[in-house]
Amino acid sequence: SSSTEDTHSSKPSDNGSIFEPLDTFPRRHIGPSAKSAEQMLQALDPPANSLDEFVKQVLPADILSTTPLKVEGPIPATGSEHSSGGGYSESQLIMRLKEIASGNKVYKSYIGCGYAGTRVPETIKRNILENPAWYTSYTPYQPEISQGRLESLLNFQTMCSDLTGLEMSNASVLDESTAAAEAMTLSMNALPSTRQKRAKKVFFVSHLCHPQTIAVLESRAQGFGITIEVGDILAEKSKRVDEIGEDLIGVLAQYPDTLGGVADFRHLSDKIHKLQATFSVATDLLALTLLTPPGDFGADVAFGNAQRFGVPFGFGGPHAAFFSVSEKHRRKIPGRLIGLSKDRLGDPAARLALQTREQHIRREKATSNICTAQALLANMSAMYAVYHGPDGLKKIAEKVAKMTQVLARALEEVGCEVRQPVAFDTVVIKKHDAPTFAAKTAQMFHVNFRVVDDDHIGITLDETVGKKQIDEILKAFTTETVDIIKIAKEVSAVSSIPEALRRTSEYMTHPVFNSHHSETEIMRYMNHLQSKDLSLVHSMIPLGSCTMKLNAATEMAPISWPEFSAIHPFAPSDQTQGYAQLIDELEKDLAAITGFHAVSLQPNSGAQGEFTGLRAIRKYLEEQPGKKRDICLIPVSAHGTNPASAAMAGMRVVTIKCEASTGNLDMQDLKAKCEKHSEELGAIMITYPSTFGIFEPKVKEVCDLVHSHGGQVYMDGANMNAQIGLCSPGEIGADVCHLNLHKTFCIPHGGGGPGVGPIGVAEHLAPYLPGHPLVAGVGGSKAIAPVSGAPWGSASILPISWAYIKMMGARGLTHATKITLLNANYILSRLKPHYPILYTNDAGRCAHEFILDVRKFKDTCGVEAIDIAKRLQDYGFHAPTMSWPVANTLMIEPTESESKAELDRFCEALISIREEIQEVEEGRQPREGNVLKMAPHTVKDLISGEWGRSYGRERAAYPLPWLKEKKFWPSVTSCPPVQDTPDGLTGTEAPTPT
Amino acid sequence: SSSTEDTHSSKPSDNGSIFEPLDTFPRRHIGPSAKSAEQMLQALDPPANSLDEFVKQVLPADILSTTPLKVEGPIPATGSEHSSGGGYSESQLIMRLKEIASGNKVYKSYIGCGYAGTRVPETIKRNILENPAWYTSYTPYQPEISQGRLESLLNFQTMCSDLTGLEMSNASVLDESTAAAEAMTLSMNALPSTRQKRAKKVFFVSHLCHPQTIAVLESRAQGFGITIEVGDILAEKSKRVDEIGEDLIGVLAQYPDTLGGVADFRHLSDKIHKLQATFSVATDLLALTLLTPPGDFGADVAFGNAQRFGVPFGFGGPHAAFFSVSEKHRRKIPGRLIGLSKDRLGDPAARLALQTREQHIRREKATSNICTAQALLANMSAMYAVYHGPDGLKKIAEKVAKMTQVLARALEEVGCEVRQPVAFDTVVIKKHDAPTFAAKTAQMFHVNFRVVDDDHIGITLDETVGKKQIDEILKAFTTETVDIIKIAKEVSAVSSIPEALRRTSEYMTHPVFNSHHSETEIMRYMNHLQSKDLSLVHSMIPLGSCTMKLNAATEMAPISWPEFSAIHPFAPSDQTQGYAQLIDELEKDLAAITGFHAVSLQPNSGAQGEFTGLRAIRKYLEEQPGKKRDICLIPVSAHGTNPASAAMAGMRVVTIKCEASTGNLDMQDLKAKCEKHSEELGAIMITYPSTFGIFEPKVKEVCDLVHSHGGQVYMDGANMNAQIGLCSPGEIGADVCHLNLHKTFCIPHGGGGPGVGPIGVAEHLAPYLPGHPLVAGVGGSKAIAPVSGAPWGSASILPISWAYIKMMGARGLTHATKITLLNANYILSRLKPHYPILYTNDAGRCAHEFILDVRKFKDTCGVEAIDIAKRLQDYGFHAPTMSWPVANTLMIEPTESESKAELDRFCEALISIREEIQEVEEGRQPREGNVLKMAPHTVKDLISGEWGRSYGRERAAYPLPWLKEKKFWPSVTSCPPVQDTPDGLTGTEAPTPT
Ligand SMILES: Cc1ncc(COP(=O)(O)O)c(C=O)c1O
Ligand SMILES: Cc1ncc(COP(=O)(O)O)c(C=O)c1O
Ligand SMILES: O=C([O-])O
Repeated sequence: SSSTEDTHSSKPSDNGSIFEPLDTFPRRHIGPSAKSAEQMLQALDPPANSLDEFVKQVLPADILSTTPLKVEGPIPATGSEHSSGGGYSESQLIMRLKEIASGNKVYKSYIGCGYAGTRVPETIKRNILENPAWYTSYTPYQPEISQGRLESLLNFQTMCSDLTGLEMSNASVLDESTAAAEAMTLSMNALPSTRQKRAKKVFFVSHLCHPQTIAVLESRAQGFGITIEVGDILAEKSKRVDEIGEDLIGVLAQYPDTLGGVADFRHLSDKIHKLQATFSVATDLLALTLLTPPGDFGADVAFGNAQRFGVPFGFGGPHAAFFSVSEKHRRKIPGRLIGLSKDRLGDPAARLALQTREQHIRREKATSNICTAQALLANMSAMYAVYHGPDGLKKIAEKVAKMTQVLARALEEVGCEVRQPVAFDTVVIKKHDAPTFAAKTAQMFHVNFRVVDDDHIGITLDETVGKKQIDEILKAFTTETVDIIKIAKEVSAVSSIPEALRRTSEYMTHPVFNSHHSETEIMRYMNHLQSKDLSLVHSMIPLGSCTMKLNAATEMAPISWPEFSAIHPFAPSDQTQGYAQLIDELEKDLAAITGFHAVSLQPNSGAQGEFTGLRAIRKYLEEQPGKKRDICLIPVSAHGTNPASAAMAGMRVVTIKCEASTGNLDMQDLKAKCEKHSEELGAIMITYPSTFGIFEPKVKEVCDLVHSHGGQVYMDGANMNAQIGLCSPGEIGADVCHLNLHKTFCIPHGGGGPGVGPIGVAEHLAPYLPGHPLVAGVGGSKAIAPVSGAPWGSASILPISWAYIKMMGARGLTHATKITLLNANYILSRLKPHYPILYTNDAGRCAHEFILDVRKFKDTCGVEAIDIAKRLQDYGFHAPTMSWPVANTLMIEPTESESKAELDRFCEALISIREEIQEVEEGRQPREGNVLKMAPHTVKDLISGEWGRSYGRERAAYPLPWLKEKKFWPSVTSCPPVQDTPDGLTGTEAPTPT
Repeated sequence: SSSTEDTHSSKPSDNGSIFEPLDTFPRRHIGPSAKSAEQMLQALDPPANSLDEFVKQVLPADILSTTPLKVEGPIPATGSEHSSGGGYSESQLIMRLKEIASGNKVYKSYIGCGYAGTRVPETIKRNILENPAWYTSYTPYQPEISQGRLESLLNFQTMCSDLTGLEMSNASVLDESTAAAEAMTLSMNALPSTRQKRAKKVFFVSHLCHPQTIAVLESRAQGFGITIEVGDILAEKSKRVDEIGEDLIGVLAQYPDTLGGVADFRHLSDKIHKLQATFSVATDLLALTLLTPPGDFGADVAFGNAQRFGVPFGFGGPHAAFFSVSEKHRRKIPGRLIGLSKDRLGDPAARLALQTREQHIRREKATSNICTAQALLANMSAMYAVYHGPDGLKKIAEKVAKMTQVLARALEEVGCEVRQPVAFDTVVIKKHDAPTFAAKTAQMFHVNFRVVDDDHIGITLDETVGKKQIDEILKAFTTETVDIIKIAKEVSAVSSIPEALRRTSEYMTHPVFNSHHSETEIMRYMNHLQSKDLSLVHSMIPLGSCTMKLNAATEMAPISWPEFSAIHPFAPSDQTQGYAQLIDELEKDLAAITGFHAVSLQPNSGAQGEFTGLRAIRKYLEEQPGKKRDICLIPVSAHGTNPASAAMAGMRVVTIKCEASTGNLDMQDLKAKCEKHSEELGAIMITYPSTFGIFEPKVKEVCDLVHSHGGQVYMDGANMNAQIGLCSPGEIGADVCHLNLHKTFCIPHGGGGPGVGPIGVAEHLAPYLPGHPLVAGVGGSKAIAPVSGAPWGSASILPISWAYIKMMGARGLTHATKITLLNANYILSRLKPHYPILYTNDAGRCAHEFILDVRKFKDTCGVEAIDIAKRLQDYGFHAPTMSWPVANTLMIEPTESESKAELDRFCEALISIREEIQEVEEGRQPREGNVLKMAPHTVKDLISGEWGRSYGRERAAYPLPWLKEKKFWPSVTSCPPVQDTPDGLTGTEAPTPT
């Protein structure tokens, strides 16, 4: 087929085009060659004659786009016309992006507000951030092949617990501001149930919290009916706390506060606890090396941004936020938690704890929707701590603290009025017309200060600052030279920290933080952890709903450029024109791809996108005449984040059935519920293609029906990879859709994050896109409060998706979609003779993924999905998505990046496993202790002790011949789930895909 | 000790220094912490009280430097004085280097001459060039833990053989120019022996060879008494060949030639062969995808630069040159050759072929001294070919060829006189006052042309060129706009290649070149190969004489910067001021370190340094009165490259004995030989500390003695790591010394190269440092001919060594030396109760390495050094240097970068092996088939088939408990040497260390 040709070959398409670059990208991104694609079409069951014929068998005719996708592309060398749909070549892309990047000005930022300069150790940058073995791995659901990042995340947890003085820490949350929102929700949940039912619920927030945190709290409070009260939490012996009384759910302090002070909260803490409310503290890990930890003065929750531990500004993200709680709240901690288990051989093995509060189990009763988090950045920060060790961190903190004292003293010497106390890294100075002063300073001296308000300037120092920088800062205030060396001799590092708040307790005493301080040692440690983890550098990761496609090196390169990484999120806009351009182009392209009017890039994950989209819908509906529309219809098949997000947006969830035979939405049920709730119908949330991997034929009808009842259509875009260029949410009739840039648009999964979950919206919803309190020009004209601390969320990874779109071009993107469908159907066709397939459409086709139905084996021989998943590890593969959306099944998504050879290897593995199952079925192998039940096998398991099993060692290790050449070895054998439920039951092992 | 403190802690040393950066480097580079160092001093046998006391036990008092080392360092923040001996911090270093780099201007270079622009695929850059797992590995002497790079080098060989049409290719040589010299030497060796003895030996070189190649040939020809005749090799039916007749050793052609033409050499080739001489062809791999390969028209040797296969200009290097020969010359191919063997289990295993022509066996009878080559770059080029495949390469070649035709036609259209034929990528145009024209063009249009001579300009195109670039080129010649799109329609790609010279044969049909064309596939392939190789990311590599120290990420980062990588070696000097500054600083620092007057960075390896130093000595001596001084004294213990280099420099080698008991030079013998050869004494070559790892006490006496007989002292600086800051070759009395920057100064070994082998010389030798024919200002006033094609050899890796020196500072460098000595003596002390140590000094100390004497075990139980080496792999370690400088011993060098913990692991392994040996000695294990003789064990070996050995599987795999947590698995079991000697004997397995 001609479209195959075009994007697969680098053949010049016309005579003049010898001038076109040959380093075209689609043929590198897409796995199968044109020839393989032809063979695969033939091998389908039934075969297809061409890719285009095949596509028509997959998608309903009524949703196919009528005009080809358009995204801006390069102007061909041959003529003056605009892009013909091809993409930029890899080298062209880098050139174009360098040009865009030059629009960002890398000035020194002392803006603070929860973001500080840091030195990323070059070895950590090279060996983690720039290393596909770390960034292409998935959330560590399969502990046997994930011990490396599990250990590193455990280090992250230990570090956070040690520094905050709180028993439990999780493996990261999205950012400091959403962490605050999680603390608020936890506070609500921690109330006695009678108190939870009170009409009024007040979360009392210190006016000295970072402004963006307060703004994000606003956006999250509404859905829960919580009132955010901002005020002086200490004034008059915290009198206001008493006044709020039983309405109080919790108090939030910032420590050190946004203006750089510290206060003693012991008294307040007692007061809060007497009211059975929760005390949360937003804090700074580096400061905690010098300050009494929150756990020591009664905080129940402490959280903050770990960014200054070796993760660059990145114009706002991604960074790992941490979240720590006291023992008594251990079951309420949001997000993922790593725990220690033991494997079958009794060896220690880390694994994700299963948490019954999570949204995939509690659905609309969940109070957090966090799924994708910030694993890669948590790993970088943890490694930064491992490399520096407790002494190294303390030295850094002392240097920062002392320099800050010196700066404060110097400013006083030149006549500035400095706000007291100056506790750690921040100095606030009185300054008439602060905005003008800051603007001028930026222009003249290339340094950015914070404009606290019209009369105050803030300056936050960090480990990158030295004498030169302090001299530069002082230039903004005086033309005299100040002898800061002399001042430095006079001040002592901790002079301004009140005696009572100086840290005395030890931290990070674990050997891991005290062994790897030479570069050779840390390099080997990183490499050792890496060696335990399976990632895309090894083999296909066929996780349904996760879209584990190529994360190309050219896409990843720009995130290391200082023009993108060294920009503070609140830097003045004239310094961030490069970002502005890139964001504008990406929004435009994503709008074109989704068929929508506008896009917001602010949400830090898919789940955050859901919440944002629903909040926009609600705000829009509130402005429409009629009743309050707060019913949200959600099919049973939906991802757990959907109902959780709906609930968080204050909607009442009504479940819609699916047809047992086809998996499609039950139209009868839908109609009935639409009619029943017609006046209150707010929205429906659908995933398309469905979570069962099918392009439901009646999707347009669904949209029309909901619209006709006054509801809005929210589309979960996790499966967008099946749509691009062939159809679009906008054309189909949706009003909002979130995208997972970490699935469809090549941001690597990072072992469980980062992610970006932008939303596209139809014109009528555009005014409601989220804004930002500190940065103008973000969001719509009637913007909802922000959902992330930074105006464009995880801005520094947006170049990845931008680069992907630009290098693929409209033609490449569309072709990739076709191949993604072909790859899934090819596997389906190869496996069909061996396994039941749960759902296909009328033509016998799936979309970009499908469900392998292995349920019957439980009856025939006791084999379950998990056994197949574990056995696949012995074949060198990560398991498909297990038991979601259907319990005890496997959902397979190959993506377009896998070659036919790799698909064949995977099929051979599953076919071979089917034969192994048959042996059990036929009694040739026992029901217990067979090769599936004992999987996966580690080397140690195979060579230690007596054997005495019903199968041979070689069979366990090398069931197929190519495994002798290339084999990935799990580092532990299977290990039971870590119990963290009150009753010791763990429900299901099935994780929700992120 | 205070010096330990200083460089280990980041503690501010005075009150003002809170402003100093904390990211200091010495504590990251040096493995043991200050506390560990104290413990190690105590653990020595006998113990030492302080580091300084210890140092005095190691070095003879009379060589200790009297003043501390000085190298330029940062100016402290605290004051106006200059550096106090500390180094730049990592971040300071990067800032300073960015500043220096900005002195290089990245203009587009069309200078050609064997260097062409290329697109380094980003995934290869990231996953090989920037990946420590690839760049920190050693020459693959231990095949069981090196199959990855062995396979990749085999790919390199296959690619070269396929493209040149010659049966055998090696795994790279240093550059195209030295390859020409190797071809010349091979030609001499290939002559019938009577012909070899003729007084006159003429190597007839085409005047159309690259000028730098001709210059390097000159430098190499002298030592062999070969006459280089440059002329038109085809004129009048190659009449001149007949005239040279029996004096002819060989002919060298360039194809395509330096001016871009191609010619048919079939007739010439026949003529040469009739004279029993050799026909060598310098060629271009990319052109060979379109041209008849040299093998097809009778070439015996083909060589060239593989740089344009994905390795950047780098201001001249490093790049891999290739070298291919016909079957009949297979035993004469220089350098390393990878062959296929089978392991103990019968599985295919690649390994280095043992070549009896190598210098470590043939010593002064060797005619090539190549040791370190260009493995890392060969791997990059091979991977480039794997990624593009034969079709991809051909497309690139066709694009280049066609664009060149278009350019030629366009230039003609605007009135230029174009030299014919234009065969592939180069156009030569007549131009009055070419130098001025080129200079102006560079200034105005930022493009560099080649100045062929006063009246000709050369323009060489490459795969990075597109329409924009051609338009830019044309601007230099005309103000009109030329419609090159129209011209492109008229010309056909291969139009200018004569029918008879068009390639018809296939190439690169092996599956490896036809499978990995998607980025996912190539990433997995690179990762799969990597997973088979042990490198510094896994564990200590204790190879004596190799100095496997940390290659820090901050040192490595700059080599990816375009300011260093994208500069043509012959770019005008006003564009390379950054390089000039860096080179100047590095030369100064190396001069300070060695105690010499001047330094040349031109030699591409240690062996090249030897040759260069000896040539300088000879030139100097020639200008002295008296007899021809051509005797070179070399101790028996010398590295094989020493006598080989001496022979190549035309010197007669006289061997000096060593004392059996101490290993020191036999002073009696030395005196006797000095006296005997007094009138003809040219030089002595000594290694210091000696190759036995001892600071010989009488080194000054040796120098004085040789000087008193009129000879010069050449010091082999392979062991410089033991000297820095404590003593220096210059102070000791040497006249020349080469350094291995790839040992002492942190350039990674790259799996067998690249390297840099600069020489430092005393003032009287400075005038003879090598020059360059195309670049002014290189070398001394009476410069010898160049020894490398590029003026500063492998310039693009010089920032690594510069960064190392600058970050360590004088104090850090000196401290590193002390710790390197301590580390070696610590191991020695721990192992002494278990193994005999061959040599120590009077105080019982070794220098930075020592020899473990395992010879007695051969008698006691049949265990040899090789068995211990293989068994060490089971413990996760690379073997020490085996059987060199003493047969059947192990030489251990830890370097300063290894921590005490790692040294302890290594000692535990060797002690445990000693116990295993004892079991054999005591008959508890059999002499054959014991755990040592069967080592190393692969997983497959352990789990396949029946066991039935005298030891258990677990014992084989996990002899020490920590191996269960961290274990590196060999990918094949031991495999016999590849035979490539005529009689099938392989001599010894012992490789010479590079
Ligand atoms: C269908 C679906 N919706 C929503 C999400 C949530 O996305 P995120 O993990 O980015 O929050 C996922 C994650 O896998 C998903 O599969
Ligand atoms: C003592 C000694 N001299 C010379 C050399 C040759 O150096 P190169 O391999 O860089 O040519 C070596 C290499 O190991 C060596 O150990
Ligand atoms: O537990 C998960 O939701 O993945």
